[in-house]
Amino acid sequence: MPARHDETLIRALIDDWQDAICSGDLDRVTADHADDIVMFDVPEPVQEIGIDAYRRTWRLFFAHNPAGPERFRIDELRIEAGDRVAFAHGLLTIGGGDAHCRLTLGLRKANGRWQITHEHHSMPLGPG
Amino acid sequence: MPARHDETLIRALIDDWQDAICSGDLDRVTADHADDIVMFDVPEPVQEIGIDAYRRTWRLFFAHNPAGPERFRIDELRIEAGDRVAFAHGLLTIGGGDAHCRLTLGLRKANGRWQITHEHHSMPLGPG
Repeated sequence: MPARHDETLIRALIDDWQDAICSGDLDRVTADHADDIVMFDVPEPVQEIGIDAYRRTWRLFFAHNPAGPERFRIDELRIEAGDRVAFAHGLLTIGGGDAHCRLTLGLRKANGRWQITHEHHSMPLGPG
Repeated sequence: MPARHDETLIRALIDDWQDAICSGDLDRVTADHADDIVMFDVPEPVQEIGIDAYRRTWRLFFAHNPAGPERFRIDELRIEAGDRVAFAHGLLTIGGGDAHCRLTLGLRKANGRWQITHEHHSMPLGPG
């Protein structure tokens, strides 16, 4: 089934992206991202549009979160892959703490290659 | 092109969902949702799994946000539709205020019908 093969490719892409974030390799973090990516990040602003703005969000993140395997951990990753569109979601732990964030990725296949075109990272609001 | 047709179907589905939220029609809000939906909502908890938990999030929302066209407004909606998987994202305004939230939807086509299987609603964290 193509869908199973695509799911494997996307899982490898996300694994590599996560590893690049943990080690702070910005070129590898952005290697599989579309130029017109729309990013909804944990902190304001409400959205960042385009790969240059996307890179800036990671520079800020790297400045505040030490490198290492606990920098950016994804759990409960689920992937839905079609022929040329896919999405994935999971829980996110930053810095090894107890506070969970959430991650949703949107992907598009262009010229036989999967790219992330949308990311949504967030922290739920607590009481009060 | 099937993709264009699917995009039209998904846009109509989202329009109808938004209208059902604004009027408070819970059965119509959940009509095009999968039983195993994974919901990342604005407030805690970090995730809600399954259609019963999903319905509860809307009961809470309806209790705190008056019905009407400004209850739940989506702007800048973009849809990526493949053969059997799609996602959509946009900015969300609740109650007509200035504070924007963000919305990402994941969809799957089963038996010729699109269903929402994942939702991610969030508010960005402000400074401090």
